[in-house]
Amino acid sequence: MKRSVRELAELIDARVMGDGTVEVSRVASLQSAAVGDLIFAEEEKNFALASQSLASAVIAGEFAAGSTSSRPVLICAQPRLAFARAARLFRAAGHHEAGVHPTAIVPSSVRAGTGVNVGAYVVLGQGVQIGDNTRIGAGCVMGANVVIGRDCELYPNVTVYSGVRIGDRVVVHAGAVLGSDGFGYVRDEKTGRYEKFPQIGRLEIEDDVEIGANATIDRGALDVTRIGRGTKIDNLVHVGHNVQVGEDVVIAAQTGLSGSAVVKNNVVIGGQAGIADHVRIEEGAILGAQSGIPSKKIIRGKGVVFWGTPARPIREYLKQLAVLARLAKKE
Amino acid sequence: MKRSVRELAELIDARVMGDGTVEVSRVASLQSAAVGDLIFAEEEKNFALASQSLASAVIAGEFAAGSTSSRPVLICAQPRLAFARAARLFRAAGHHEAGVHPTAIVPSSVRAGTGVNVGAYVVLGQGVQIGDNTRIGAGCVMGANVVIGRDCELYPNVTVYSGVRIGDRVVVHAGAVLGSDGFGYVRDEKTGRYEKFPQIGRLEIEDDVEIGANATIDRGALDVTRIGRGTKIDNLVHVGHNVQVGEDVVIAAQTGLSGSAVVKNNVVIGGQAGIADHVRIEEGAILGAQSGIPSKKIIRGKGVVFWGTPARPIREYLKQLAVLARLAKKE
Amino acid sequence: MKRSVRELAELIDARVMGDGTVEVSRVASLQSAAVGDLIFAEEEKNFALASQSLASAVIAGEFAAGSTSSRPVLICAQPRLAFARAARLFRAAGHHEAGVHPTAIVPSSVRAGTGVNVGAYVVLGQGVQIGDNTRIGAGCVMGANVVIGRDCELYPNVTVYSGVRIGDRVVVHAGAVLGSDGFGYVRDEKTGRYEKFPQIGRLEIEDDVEIGANATIDRGALDVTRIGRGTKIDNLVHVGHNVQVGEDVVIAAQTGLSGSAVVKNNVVIGGQAGIADHVRIEEGAILGAQSGIPSKKIIRGKGVVFWGTPARPIREYLKQLAVLARLAKKE
Repeated sequence: MKRSVRELAELIDARVMGDGTVEVSRVASLQSAAVGDLIFAEEEKNFALASQSLASAVIAGEFAAGSTSSRPVLICAQPRLAFARAARLFRAAGHHEAGVHPTAIVPSSVRAGTGVNVGAYVVLGQGVQIGDNTRIGAGCVMGANVVIGRDCELYPNVTVYSGVRIGDRVVVHAGAVLGSDGFGYVRDEKTGRYEKFPQIGRLEIEDDVEIGANATIDRGALDVTRIGRGTKIDNLVHVGHNVQVGEDVVIAAQTGLSGSAVVKNNVVIGGQAGIADHVRIEEGAILGAQSGIPSKKIIRGKGVVFWGTPARPIREYLKQLAVLARLAKKE
Repeated sequence: MKRSVRELAELIDARVMGDGTVEVSRVASLQSAAVGDLIFAEEEKNFALASQSLASAVIAGEFAAGSTSSRPVLICAQPRLAFARAARLFRAAGHHEAGVHPTAIVPSSVRAGTGVNVGAYVVLGQGVQIGDNTRIGAGCVMGANVVIGRDCELYPNVTVYSGVRIGDRVVVHAGAVLGSDGFGYVRDEKTGRYEKFPQIGRLEIEDDVEIGANATIDRGALDVTRIGRGTKIDNLVHVGHNVQVGEDVVIAAQTGLSGSAVVKNNVVIGGQAGIADHVRIEEGAILGAQSGIPSKKIIRGKGVVFWGTPARPIREYLKQLAVLARLAKKE
Repeated sequence: MKRSVRELAELIDARVMGDGTVEVSRVASLQSAAVGDLIFAEEEKNFALASQSLASAVIAGEFAAGSTSSRPVLICAQPRLAFARAARLFRAAGHHEAGVHPTAIVPSSVRAGTGVNVGAYVVLGQGVQIGDNTRIGAGCVMGANVVIGRDCELYPNVTVYSGVRIGDRVVVHAGAVLGSDGFGYVRDEKTGRYEKFPQIGRLEIEDDVEIGANATIDRGALDVTRIGRGTKIDNLVHVGHNVQVGEDVVIAAQTGLSGSAVVKNNVVIGGQAGIADHVRIEEGAILGAQSGIPSKKIIRGKGVVFWGTPARPIREYLKQLAVLARLAKKE
């Protein structure tokens, strides 16, 4: 679906420089852009390259205001953000087929809103509730009484254990597992054998969360595991039982959060980081990739980057590395 | 299903203080307990809080023997263990529907015991054997000649490759893959290309093992990969070909065991630990989270904690970290 | 299917010592070999043991040329490689049933070659193309317009997102996810919320690649993620958007490659390594297990082993560890 540059500019809060009647229908990268494509430039250098591409329009920052360009420019404060929004508009205009595939197993107790799409070989448990326009990919399995909001997308082969609650506009990628049992055992001091601690709590995922492929999020042991609004979780991330993740948190691939960890709002966690049980990451802290936080530690510092295992403020860590390198060279 | 405190006390080997006729039907946490719930307290502090909750009964240690409580107390040596056992009794009393879903693909050569439940869209290979009361979740796929014991539970979307043998009371969480090919290649020195080494061995999982969501356990290359009785494996753990894991081993999330590693009984391994090929972890050793054991190393020391990469006894490692921090501060 | 030693020797480029008419039908390990089995010995020590086994024939290096053996010996330059090739010949001779299971969902726009096998409950999107003799395991789901070459094997429960292109002789293990959205968001500076950056690029997997169980490979954001010919990827590996992996690269389990990383030909990466965004690993470098490469770094050195986080040449790293250990001991 085509949109004029003028129409788009209004929707993404940009102002047009040049011909607003030009039409675009797709986003593209600077390297691959063709006629009809919209691209973006965050720096003057890229803006110059953009002018040589085949793209029909360019989103750029204020730096481009005085420039001359043979094609229309959409000027705004955050070009990358505006580009992402434009891409969403094109996506939303795409085809969305509603309907329940005849092979999907949907007990009569399931309640689904309008515009819902349930794929082939989906298996829904008793009492599942699905909000409007939500799509459940082929091969997904949901246990009893799962509640999922509107405008969600579950890609194929996702498993949702019974009782999990999922908000609106949540995206779950293929193979993710939501609400599995936590890892809790009690050792019998007499026999040395492990008895499973009950893992019968809940999992609540708030609005606008995205969860990566093959990620796993455990239910609470007795209470609740919670993923806050707007939080983004990458592929193969593990979230243990009773973990509390705040809002707008970013967790990169293969990171693990152990039981009862607390991660407050706006925290950013790099890939392969390890957060032990009962750790508390205070608001806005940043953990570097592969960093490790030992059990029960508190990490505090808005905008402060921590790195290493055990994680230290990155300046300290880098200084330690430099000192060690110097000592080794002397020998 | 309700049970009286007296009845429960007998089953979990506790003694009752107070009214043994009170009935409980669920376990709960101290924070969320309601009437009819059973909770536990391991310390006097929590016991005091427990007294203020709505729970109908409390499991506590010997410290509570002299106390006064308005509700019945079940006194025992390991309150947390007794609580876990009580939870299991409540679970066992739950509903278990037997039957094979009409959409499950079950060749006539499959043999299944009594009380078996096979979910929707399960695909079983030729010659599969399933013990009594075992449950196979929706979407699971088993290759030919898989043998699985009694009272097992496979959650949805588990894949079991052909020939894997699974004991009794084994729990496998959603998305786990059992018996996949190991990672073994031989480089052709002339062409620089890799030829796959045969991965045609077996995988044997003994009784009472639990395997986490999206974990992967490879079959042996020519011989066998083995997971010993009572071992607990968390989400996203990787176990390579020919690995031998002993009994009552605990392996936390995202840990990886490379080919031919040996882990003896009662070892505890933290999350994201990396155990290289041909490593040997002797009985009762403890590996901290993110620790790394280089190829062919032997780790020895019952109850000794190892940490870091390469892993050292934790005292040594912490001392090294302290020395380095001090040197860096001086500069 | 049996083959004579002489026939086999021709196929794997070895020369026969002893009775070439002896027949073998399987490969086995030295420990478990029975009559009819073929084994291999890379060293004289193992060759002596091989002579005591029940195996019917032995592949060995030139060292065995002068020896006397009661059974036929196949002599060649790389015994392990020859053994792997022999194993492949036995495998290829195995039964391969063609056909589309009646429960597979195959739109009329799908084009499949001859000898294709599509398992139970497979779901194929519009316009999927499948090459000759390719096998799609039970429960796999492929989005629209996926193109997959000939002689591939997808194990069960693999998810392939729309538009992914897969070459010939590619093996994908159970639960892997190919072509999922990359992890890219743009923060709105006004609201602090994240907007998803478009993840609409492609994923191309070249010939002879093998991908482990539950591995995840993201599509490009706007352009392409590429896995080069002959590359081998182990279980639970994560490959982010726009990553370019060269040919004959080996990536061990649980390693993560962040967005836009470049890995050139013949690189070897150990398990749990972390490669940050925009890193470049030059041809033939070797990364030790758990090593970490910070954002935008270039790692260079054919045959050089790097270790640690941040990764250094292993000699440097080991020296630093030794210096630190010595300092700590002095205190």
